[in-house]
Amino acid sequence: MKTLFDQDLKVVNVGLQSFAANITAAGGEVTHLSWSPPAGADAALGWTLANMMGHPRVEEANRIAYERYLAAQPRLVDFVLAREAIPALARERRILHSGPPIAWDDMCGPQQGAITGAIVYEGWASTVEGAEKMAASGAVALEPCHAHQAVGPMAGIISPSMPVWVVENTAAGNRAFCNVNEGLGKVLRFGANSVDVLERLRWLGSEFFTSMQAAVRGLSDPDLKPLMAQALHMGDELHNRNAAASGLLFKRLTLSLLNSKLDNGMIKRTLAFVAGNDHFFLNLAMAACKSMSDAAHGVPGSSMVTVMARNGVNFGIRLSGTGDQWFQAPANPVNGLYFPGYTIEDAAADLGDSAIAETNGLGGFAMAASPAIVQFVGGTPADATANSRRMLSITLGNNPAFTLPALNFGGTPAGIDARLVIDSGILPIINTGIAHKKAGVGQIGAGITTAPMECFNPALAALAKTLQGSSSAPVSAV
Amino acid sequence: MKTLFDQDLKVVNVGLQSFAANITAAGGEVTHLSWSPPAGADAALGWTLANMMGHPRVEEANRIAYERYLAAQPRLVDFVLAREAIPALARERRILHSGPPIAWDDMCGPQQGAITGAIVYEGWASTVEGAEKMAASGAVALEPCHAHQAVGPMAGIISPSMPVWVVENTAAGNRAFCNVNEGLGKVLRFGANSVDVLERLRWLGSEFFTSMQAAVRGLSDPDLKPLMAQALHMGDELHNRNAAASGLLFKRLTLSLLNSKLDNGMIKRTLAFVAGNDHFFLNLAMAACKSMSDAAHGVPGSSMVTVMARNGVNFGIRLSGTGDQWFQAPANPVNGLYFPGYTIEDAAADLGDSAIAETNGLGGFAMAASPAIVQFVGGTPADATANSRRMLSITLGNNPAFTLPALNFGGTPAGIDARLVIDSGILPIINTGIAHKKAGVGQIGAGITTAPMECFNPALAALAKTLQGSSSAPVSAV
Repeated sequence: MKTLFDQDLKVVNVGLQSFAANITAAGGEVTHLSWSPPAGADAALGWTLANMMGHPRVEEANRIAYERYLAAQPRLVDFVLAREAIPALARERRILHSGPPIAWDDMCGPQQGAITGAIVYEGWASTVEGAEKMAASGAVALEPCHAHQAVGPMAGIISPSMPVWVVENTAAGNRAFCNVNEGLGKVLRFGANSVDVLERLRWLGSEFFTSMQAAVRGLSDPDLKPLMAQALHMGDELHNRNAAASGLLFKRLTLSLLNSKLDNGMIKRTLAFVAGNDHFFLNLAMAACKSMSDAAHGVPGSSMVTVMARNGVNFGIRLSGTGDQWFQAPANPVNGLYFPGYTIEDAAADLGDSAIAETNGLGGFAMAASPAIVQFVGGTPADATANSRRMLSITLGNNPAFTLPALNFGGTPAGIDARLVIDSGILPIINTGIAHKKAGVGQIGAGITTAPMECFNPALAALAKTLQGSSSAPVSAV
Repeated sequence: MKTLFDQDLKVVNVGLQSFAANITAAGGEVTHLSWSPPAGADAALGWTLANMMGHPRVEEANRIAYERYLAAQPRLVDFVLAREAIPALARERRILHSGPPIAWDDMCGPQQGAITGAIVYEGWASTVEGAEKMAASGAVALEPCHAHQAVGPMAGIISPSMPVWVVENTAAGNRAFCNVNEGLGKVLRFGANSVDVLERLRWLGSEFFTSMQAAVRGLSDPDLKPLMAQALHMGDELHNRNAAASGLLFKRLTLSLLNSKLDNGMIKRTLAFVAGNDHFFLNLAMAACKSMSDAAHGVPGSSMVTVMARNGVNFGIRLSGTGDQWFQAPANPVNGLYFPGYTIEDAAADLGDSAIAETNGLGGFAMAASPAIVQFVGGTPADATANSRRMLSITLGNNPAFTLPALNFGGTPAGIDARLVIDSGILPIINTGIAHKKAGVGQIGAGITTAPMECFNPALAALAKTLQGSSSAPVSAV
């Protein structure tokens, strides 16, 4: 003891910074380490977490889920009308939207605006006002895309007569669907529903539909995973930057269309539309991602996150081991770059199914691939690389099929483990577009946000319940 | 003095490492700094360099030359047969080659192989053997591309009936020319001259020529500088990686061809050829670069390097202020990745005019834009970034039109100053392909090399001579 007091103290302080400040004030030397208790110091949740960490059944379930994710081979197999791909859309008046389930009255402006636009597009009402009344009356069923193996960016509207990409994971045979990217400016997915928006949708559902279906059916190389891997080496992160992937797809579509018997004018208008939109590939990346994480879904005991999605009010997640149950919390604000004339005051809350990219290790998780993205979403190239590195703390591994040159060709962090999120307090980072909170205005910026911790806590508790009474022996492969 | 010996010595050693080693051996503490005298300790050259550093006439000349380089706006204005673009090719049997001037007997295998191939292609001889005799007899004039505002990668062969890209720097009106990239494998530029190589050349000079001329003449956006800038944000360095730029060009060509009245089959075959070659844009990048550095050429007193080129034996440079004089030295070996079955023993010496990319701040100078390039040329992504940073020590500035995301959107180092190369001992770094030393084999790898210092020393001495007797007053703008 005497020795201790005779020598200079070297103190390491862990946790509350004020303890360190006191030592410094008294002239002492202290190294402070940031730390806060896991599970937000919630004792019950902390106990659950402690039981789940290293739990053999969870470990084995995660191994199976993650392997299925890694094995997935998304292929662009068709381009059809939504009612042909999703039988539920053919049976009654039904429209799919992004994010977890939500009632019409609770929806944000852009989602309501997009739904009324879709109702007019379908011819169920002749005016936007009539469409609003119809939606409010409950005469149109509103359900999440995710309830039908589908995804949609921003408002995420899929109505029966809209064409959808059909992506099949050839490793497991499951299919996923996504609508068509309309471009930037006033578009349905950002809540716009004016005459020109609907006219574009009608063209996409007619001439474009015919030629793109021929293009897709005639593709000599329909595999999307190698294309996405290549785009990650060309500055895309495949959520807010899709310029390279769109260009690679454009090449394939062009060669296919030139082999078709279609009219030259049709081919020209179709390709000009694709060439004019550097985000065109986003919706294909989303369908590919949905097919990959659906492959990992439904493994009892798995704490792997297979869905992250937002409806402009709430953020919702699903875990592989808790089936189709949603775990929701109010969406976090988006720290972004706003177009001239707009501020965060004008912004809708975080919106869209496009966080399926991050769920699969792309977007914010793959930002190291895309230093140029910071001109769109903010921050610096160093932040972008740091984001990818940080996400490794909360994922089951990294995907060797999606390598990041700036991280010395390490795989992108993939397979979010809800346990690790709660244990580390590190939230999944998401690159996203920002919609105006009012219907009809459109996109007003882009930025970075996170998934709220309040989704993960109840998800883990629910998963723990499924394990109660079970032995801790590993789950058998299902 | 007593104080000095009483205290612990802290020594900094500059230059010879053995001095530092002695101190360490005696138990002392020493910080060693690498340093060697400028100008390779050549006293005369060192004196010349000292006189040239900060010389007001050189400074002013470099300012003018560099501004002309920055102001250049390369535009793809036409696609014609070489004899239409370069009058000297129409007058007599003449073939252009890469690098500084060299006699037939002194040429490397691939360049001889490519020239004989071109002679057969032109119909001046019916066999490769006959073509060799003709070339050896002096019946065909052999001159550098650079003598005719032209450039060519690797062997760099341009003969009268080959089509060339015509790029005009619209800021100054000067034009530059480059041949067409034939793809990988057995191709003329790597010295191959078999029947299939010549057949491909004939197709490029006939059907492809017709449709590509229509495509170029119908381009809605012929400006190359913004396209190149965009490609630098998509992982290209525009020398050994041109995947993004080729894709961006493909889009423009497709839209133009679909507006033409050409036969669908022709369009299809032409676009399939472009789509199949990720290096297709290289030759356009080279013509664009030639037009930019030609704009900076010919400013009396300027020490800016406006040409770096290799003929497979010697490396040659030109300075803006020394006119059309070449300064040559044996080419440095290429530190590269070889295709399976080949080693450095099989390699021709550094070859081609493509170092015009580095002369303009691209290629090795822009490697920070292209971490994925290291899979092709070797090294690590960290090396790639370090290379771009190091080149800033030997350039007049950085080009704000060509920004590098990984360097926080700083401009690429551009405008090599021969004075700074000699003063720092830092050699311009060059990404390059590697040809087999024998004619007919083709590419066997790719890698990184440097321009030899022995080119820069005589260039600076020659520049100094042009300043002798002149006042040190700044040169007037010419």
